[in-house]
Amino acid sequence: MAAANGSAGGVDTRGEFSRIYGVLKEELLKDPAFEFTDSSREWIDRMVDYNVLGGKCNRGLSVVDSYKLLKGDNVLSEEEMFLSSTLGWCIEWLQAFFLVLDDIMDDSHTRRGQPCWFRVPQVGSIAINDGIILRNHISRLLRLHFKGKPYYADLLDLFNEVEFKTASGQLLDLITTHEGEKDLTKYNIGVHRRIVQYKTAYYSFYLPVACALLLSGEDLTNYGAVENILVEMGTYFQVQDDYLDCYGDPEFIGKIGTDIEDYKCSWLVVQALERADESQKRVLFENYGKKDPACVAKVKSLYRELNLEAIFQDYENESYKKLIADIEAQPSIAVQKVLKSFLHKIYKRQK
Amino acid sequence: MAAANGSAGGVDTRGEFSRIYGVLKEELLKDPAFEFTDSSREWIDRMVDYNVLGGKCNRGLSVVDSYKLLKGDNVLSEEEMFLSSTLGWCIEWLQAFFLVLDDIMDDSHTRRGQPCWFRVPQVGSIAINDGIILRNHISRLLRLHFKGKPYYADLLDLFNEVEFKTASGQLLDLITTHEGEKDLTKYNIGVHRRIVQYKTAYYSFYLPVACALLLSGEDLTNYGAVENILVEMGTYFQVQDDYLDCYGDPEFIGKIGTDIEDYKCSWLVVQALERADESQKRVLFENYGKKDPACVAKVKSLYRELNLEAIFQDYENESYKKLIADIEAQPSIAVQKVLKSFLHKIYKRQK
Ligand SMILES: [Mg+2]
Ligand SMILES: [Mg+2]
Ligand SMILES: [Mg+2]
Ligand SMILES: [Mg+2]
Ligand SMILES: [Mg+2]
Ligand SMILES: [Mg+2]
Repeated sequence: MAAANGSAGGVDTRGEFSRIYGVLKEELLKDPAFEFTDSSREWIDRMVDYNVLGGKCNRGLSVVDSYKLLKGDNVLSEEEMFLSSTLGWCIEWLQAFFLVLDDIMDDSHTRRGQPCWFRVPQVGSIAINDGIILRNHISRLLRLHFKGKPYYADLLDLFNEVEFKTASGQLLDLITTHEGEKDLTKYNIGVHRRIVQYKTAYYSFYLPVACALLLSGEDLTNYGAVENILVEMGTYFQVQDDYLDCYGDPEFIGKIGTDIEDYKCSWLVVQALERADESQKRVLFENYGKKDPACVAKVKSLYRELNLEAIFQDYENESYKKLIADIEAQPSIAVQKVLKSFLHKIYKRQK
Repeated sequence: MAAANGSAGGVDTRGEFSRIYGVLKEELLKDPAFEFTDSSREWIDRMVDYNVLGGKCNRGLSVVDSYKLLKGDNVLSEEEMFLSSTLGWCIEWLQAFFLVLDDIMDDSHTRRGQPCWFRVPQVGSIAINDGIILRNHISRLLRLHFKGKPYYADLLDLFNEVEFKTASGQLLDLITTHEGEKDLTKYNIGVHRRIVQYKTAYYSFYLPVACALLLSGEDLTNYGAVENILVEMGTYFQVQDDYLDCYGDPEFIGKIGTDIEDYKCSWLVVQALERADESQKRVLFENYGKKDPACVAKVKSLYRELNLEAIFQDYENESYKKLIADIEAQPSIAVQKVLKSFLHKIYKRQK
């Protein structure tokens, strides 16, 4: 049973990771830096469960997995498991912070199969402050468990810098996709790359590995090439996401894509704009970003005309080849293993 | 001319402080951690000016003033002026971050004589992400100018801890004052103290002095008593604010108080609740938190019946005596001077 969810070492990694969540939450609920009232403690307890849990924890668990690969040993001491899991949970908390606020800004309705936090009765705009508190929990946890370690300041810098990049990517997304100024001429592959890399790739791909490297005593300034590879991988991941939004099986993915209706700067529309002749461009300008199913259908049929499925297959194959070559140019075999494990989790994914 | 705004040393502190704002903003606008587009750079430029400027900069300037007093020299080197001003501006940025988000949560209309940022056309809920970016600017500035200093990690911890306390105080305020569950029985002096201390006192009073202490090479763990005194002073400051909301001269303060209408957990209503008999309590329960001017008038007339003006005068005198005694028990004369300079700026203030 344990082996099914856990690692090859027979340890139930996911179960232990979950248990550590409970430990961390309890610490936060008795944080002496604030005099909790009963109702504020209950609020935080519920808010953290509601927003931090319910995802797949891929980002968080990948800190533990990466750390094992860097260490070259599938068995961690209790302390190593605790510290790597804590950093993993910090990434899950960071994601929760971003998602809570993103859902308000996007006026979304559901998240992970339940109403967005700000749509829960009695919550509303208090969700903004809750987002801030989720971000602050990371600083509290890092301070509690890492203060005094030689890499403590680097860890704070890392989370700060990744947060800054993500918020900057969000800004770019928000002002580019801005309702009311719908203008497809703003969309091109450079804009797409920038939004994707800053908004998603740094926190989803670079951050888990960077955490594992710091925990292993490494100096991140020596890992610029690793950062670049992970950011490229994150870009590839988001291109897949954009592709699956239109071409994936909704049953299998668990949601119906709405990037066309939402006027998203998707990789598909960028490819279409690059390849369209004047009359095809007119079709895009007239139909992209409209809720009307007939408009959506016209965009999708144009995508077919332009053969975007095949163009995506080429992109996927090229990206894979390039990433494998870059990974194999890395001097450390352990680092290669970490990077390949990320790549093989996402290559040709269908959801 | 300079002496009128500046310090006794003849240096135009406020002018130099303002000039340093321009330097810091330029650094942020060319931060290599993000690939700015023209429109995102212009957005940030305008957003920072709109939200960070326009206040009185009391908190920010008090870092410079406190540092001078701790150093025992009114003349600072160029570097000392720059570093103390940078920390001062970080506090102004922190305040801007809180205010941008607070105005959204409170559904406010104006701030510092102009529309709240989220009410500016084209901004809307993007203001949430802008708030996050303002907070991130602090980490960027600290990293740029303080990384490598022996107190760098303590500085990050300080801003993180004060932010956490402030957000926790906000939560308490939001869930206590929550519309829809108006229930005056929740209001008492303990609740008032907690909201005020966490939401206001730490960042407005403790943070500037703590910054000056770190810059002077001091270890904050030796300054627990100073922290307590500053938090007490911040509490006294907020009680004055609550008092002036009802009894201050609107012409002189520059705004018309609405704490009664807004159902605020004000020091005045807490005092009234403690002193009211059953029939007076009924008047409060029936009229507090209503927009109707007749209801407001009934609350104000009850305040007069209960003699709250005199109770406030007593509180003010007692607080002052207690604070002076605590300050004079401090071993360092320089620290006493810093604390007294804060106290004398606010004692018996009329606005
Ligand atoms: Mg969204
Ligand atoms: Mg979004
Ligand atoms: Mg998508
Ligand atoms: Mg407000
Ligand atoms: Mg408020
Ligand atoms: Mg007030």
